[in-house]
Amino acid sequence: MDEEIRNIKITIEYDGTSYNGWQTQQNAVGIQDIIQDAAQKITNEEIKLIGASRTDAGVHALGQVANFKTVSKIPFENIQSALNSILPDDIAIVDVENVPLNFHSRYSCISKKYVYVINNSKTRSAIHRSHEYHYPYKLDSEKMKIACNYFIGSHDFKAFMSSGSSIRDNTVRTIEALNIFMGDDVINFEIVADGFLYNMVRIIIGTLLEVGRGKIKPEEISKIIDSKERKNAGKTAPANGLYLAEIYY
Amino acid sequence: MDEEIRNIKITIEYDGTSYNGWQTQQNAVGIQDIIQDAAQKITNEEIKLIGASRTDAGVHALGQVANFKTVSKIPFENIQSALNSILPDDIAIVDVENVPLNFHSRYSCISKKYVYVINNSKTRSAIHRSHEYHYPYKLDSEKMKIACNYFIGSHDFKAFMSSGSSIRDNTVRTIEALNIFMGDDVINFEIVADGFLYNMVRIIIGTLLEVGRGKIKPEEISKIIDSKERKNAGKTAPANGLYLAEIYY
Repeated sequence: MDEEIRNIKITIEYDGTSYNGWQTQQNAVGIQDIIQDAAQKITNEEIKLIGASRTDAGVHALGQVANFKTVSKIPFENIQSALNSILPDDIAIVDVENVPLNFHSRYSCISKKYVYVINNSKTRSAIHRSHEYHYPYKLDSEKMKIACNYFIGSHDFKAFMSSGSSIRDNTVRTIEALNIFMGDDVINFEIVADGFLYNMVRIIIGTLLEVGRGKIKPEEISKIIDSKERKNAGKTAPANGLYLAEIYY
Repeated sequence: MDEEIRNIKITIEYDGTSYNGWQTQQNAVGIQDIIQDAAQKITNEEIKLIGASRTDAGVHALGQVANFKTVSKIPFENIQSALNSILPDDIAIVDVENVPLNFHSRYSCISKKYVYVINNSKTRSAIHRSHEYHYPYKLDSEKMKIACNYFIGSHDFKAFMSSGSSIRDNTVRTIEALNIFMGDDVINFEIVADGFLYNMVRIIIGTLLEVGRGKIKPEEISKIIDSKERKNAGKTAPANGLYLAEIYY
C-alpha cells in the first residue's frame, strides 16, 4: 500500500444560533461532528476532526480552524466545494489548505481573535437579532477605551472565568490587543489573546459595558483582576454577539 | 361618550425568513396579523391594521409602514415599547407617529424603495445566508450600470411581472431611481418607484445579473420592456436578498 497521508486545514464560518456549540453535547450534535461527518462522506474514511477552539452554544465563527488527516485521493481543489455541498447552510468552509503533517489546529495555535458586536440603538433589530447583543444604554466610549488598557498584558484572569470551567491550574493569559470601534449604533470589540478562559471574552465585554455605563470605574479593572473573584467582574455578555474571528499560527 | 380617535403610523423592521409574507395565507399567519394581534392586546380593541406593501414569503423589511386607528387611552410614548415587548424577536417596531385621520399607509404612499443584497464572493456565507443572495459569478458592473438607465422612467413593465399577479389593467410604473453600489464582495441594488408589479424588483434584479454576466446586452433592456413578455426578462431573483427599505409619503 502506497498511501500518501495528507493533513487538511479548513477555515470555517458558522452561525451558532441553532447549535449547542462546537462540541457534541448529550442531547445535541455539535458543529464539529457535523463537519466531521461531511469529511467522512467525501473521503469515505473514518476521520478525526480536530478543532482549534470550542465555541459555546450560540457563539458564531468567522474563522474557526480545524484539521484532519486523510489518505483519500479526493483532489485538493474539490475538498471545499464537496464539503460545502453537504454541510447545512449555516456552516460554510471558507478556506482549505494543505498543511504539514505536524500541524495541529489546537496545539499549533499561537493566538486567537474574537469579535463582539453590540447594537447600541434604542430599538432592537429584527434582522440582526441573532448576530449582535442589543444593549440600548448610553455608553461612555472614552471610559471604555481607558478600561481596555488595564486588560492588556499577562494577568491571572481567574476573575473573568465562569465557574463551570475545568481549568484549575494556570489561569494566566496574555491579552495582546483589546480595541473598541464605535459606529453610529453598532459597537465592535476586538480582542486578541494567546488563549481564553471559559467565558472570558463575554465577562470582559460585560465588564466593559458596566464601565461604559459608569457602574465600574476604568481604574478599578486592575483591582478586579487582582481579586481573582468572579463576583467582582461584570455580567457575562450573551453568546449571540460573539464571533470567533481568527486563529493565528 | 367622548372618545378621541387617533391614527397611529408604525414603521416596522422584520426578518421575513420564517414567514410566508406580510399577508396571512391559508396555512400560515402573516406578519400583518401578528402585529395586528399585538396592537389589539395593547389597546384592548379590535384593530384593523393597514399595511403599505404586501411583501412575499422570505422578503425582509427595514421600513414597512402600517397604520391603525384606536380610541384607547394608551399613552403615545408607550406604544412602541408595548408592541415590541409582545412581538416575536424577528419583528420590531422602529418608529411610531401620530398622523392625521385621513392618512392611509397604502393609498397615501407616493413611492417605495427596495434594496437587494448580493453576496458576490466565491463562498456562500453561513452567517448572512438568509439576508443576501449568493451569486458567485463574475459581474461586469459597468454593463449593469448602463442597463439600469433603460429602466428609469415610466414604462409598461408587464415583462417584469410574474404570472401569478392579479393586476390585469394598468401595468405602467415609474422607476425614479435604480442604483448599484459595488462593494468588495457585496453588491447593493436600490430601486425607487411609484409602485411595483408582482415580483417586479426580483425580475429586474435577475435581469441585471444576466446583463452582468454578459448573457443580455444593456441595450436589449428596452426591447425586453417593449415586448411585454415575461419570458424575455431574466430569472426571478430569490426572496432572501430583498428588503422593503422605505415608504415615501
